[in-house]
Amino acid sequence: MSGPNLASETAIRISEIFGPTIQGEGVLIGQPTVFVRTGGCDYRCSWCDSLHAVETRFRHDWQAMGVEAIWADVEQLSGGEPLMVSLSGGNPAIQPLGPLIAHGHRRGYRFALETQGSIARDWFADLDVLVLSPKPPSSGMETDWAALADCLAAAGDGPQIVLKFIVFDEADYAYAKAAAARHPQVSVYLQPGNHTPPPPEDDDARIDMEGIMTRMHWLVDRVVEDRWFAARVLPQLHVLLWGNKRGV
Amino acid sequence: MSGPNLASETAIRISEIFGPTIQGEGVLIGQPTVFVRTGGCDYRCSWCDSLHAVETRFRHDWQAMGVEAIWADVEQLSGGEPLMVSLSGGNPAIQPLGPLIAHGHRRGYRFALETQGSIARDWFADLDVLVLSPKPPSSGMETDWAALADCLAAAGDGPQIVLKFIVFDEADYAYAKAAAARHPQVSVYLQPGNHTPPPPEDDDARIDMEGIMTRMHWLVDRVVEDRWFAARVLPQLHVLLWGNKRGV
Repeated sequence: MSGPNLASETAIRISEIFGPTIQGEGVLIGQPTVFVRTGGCDYRCSWCDSLHAVETRFRHDWQAMGVEAIWADVEQLSGGEPLMVSLSGGNPAIQPLGPLIAHGHRRGYRFALETQGSIARDWFADLDVLVLSPKPPSSGMETDWAALADCLAAAGDGPQIVLKFIVFDEADYAYAKAAAARHPQVSVYLQPGNHTPPPPEDDDARIDMEGIMTRMHWLVDRVVEDRWFAARVLPQLHVLLWGNKRGV
Repeated sequence: MSGPNLASETAIRISEIFGPTIQGEGVLIGQPTVFVRTGGCDYRCSWCDSLHAVETRFRHDWQAMGVEAIWADVEQLSGGEPLMVSLSGGNPAIQPLGPLIAHGHRRGYRFALETQGSIARDWFADLDVLVLSPKPPSSGMETDWAALADCLAAAGDGPQIVLKFIVFDEADYAYAKAAAARHPQVSVYLQPGNHTPPPPEDDDARIDMEGIMTRMHWLVDRVVEDRWFAARVLPQLHVLLWGNKRGV
């Protein structure tokens, strides 16, 4: 879809655009949304559930699209009725999303973005919801705490900001508590990890639902035991509803 | 626990106090909370999932408790750490809850109340969250729309107010849409009904989880088809996690 006259500095690498479906996670759980998933990531988490938007071997599936082309898809999917657009990835902070957000805002749409918080952008301030999801030890990634603080500073008083942590084990839980303590003014969502993430080639791969539920129960107990009453504990609703299926 | 000097006009009929556990429904989904469930209801919904707090044959299990006695339980359960207290029932609007709310607020606790919206109370304005859950046709109940409007007026600008609708079928869905249209400024949550609610005597009764999931999928499709993007669609998370088990 990229035309020859598409200026590369404004092109957005898109992995997929789909919906409307309900947001399955975190602060917007249950809310109808169209997902705009960008391609490319500065991280490679061990348990990534979106490898098709992360690994460079899939880069030929990503399309460099301009704002107009992306918007045509969003409008078609939403029937022109404004809704919440969820910008995800990969790491969508890599992409130049400012113009897309401005374009959609003029039409009454709203924007939520989820990122690990490794790259700050001044257009974070234009978002309606910013979900910062720093990756815990089980991911195999290292957190740049200064970059995370930069993301919060960039967003300022613009969007609603929340922290979301994937938790697999005690080390992840301790990481989430410590990270939350750095930013006590920010709401926290905890999410049990899916240790059977979808292989990018297989939409119907088996999920260990019982394992996810066990981890969810453990996480609720852990939060209650700690009296960490400000944290919310939510599973990935779309996994409970649709398994690892893509595009729903 | 009711003492002989307990003034009857301040006694609160309690069915159960339990937690902390996460709120399984609606706007506070995932949030750790202590539940204070009152006994008695002016409704008798066909699919009620809390008959032990509704039917008068269970009234001998309900205790008339004063604020101090209730608060001793809440503080013990929460370890004295302030959290969100969920007032439910039965219909908690029947009870004189104003003094309990004031008592807890002085200690840093917050209060959410869920009611069908049949009885308005001036202390609704003191709540932190008011969930109005008018009952759709499948319940067998008739909605008093003036009473619902009175509840909204009583709450005023005090609490966050949301409408929550249980939806079993097309008639319920149409009811929810019409009710939401009466109060366009209020956030809406839709929840697929549990057509295998727990019999009050049996904690381990079988749940038709597949039926709930089917209804959830249908509801998501319905909302998307209608482009009702302001509505949130959420299942009862506690039912997915714990079945019909009580006290979790």
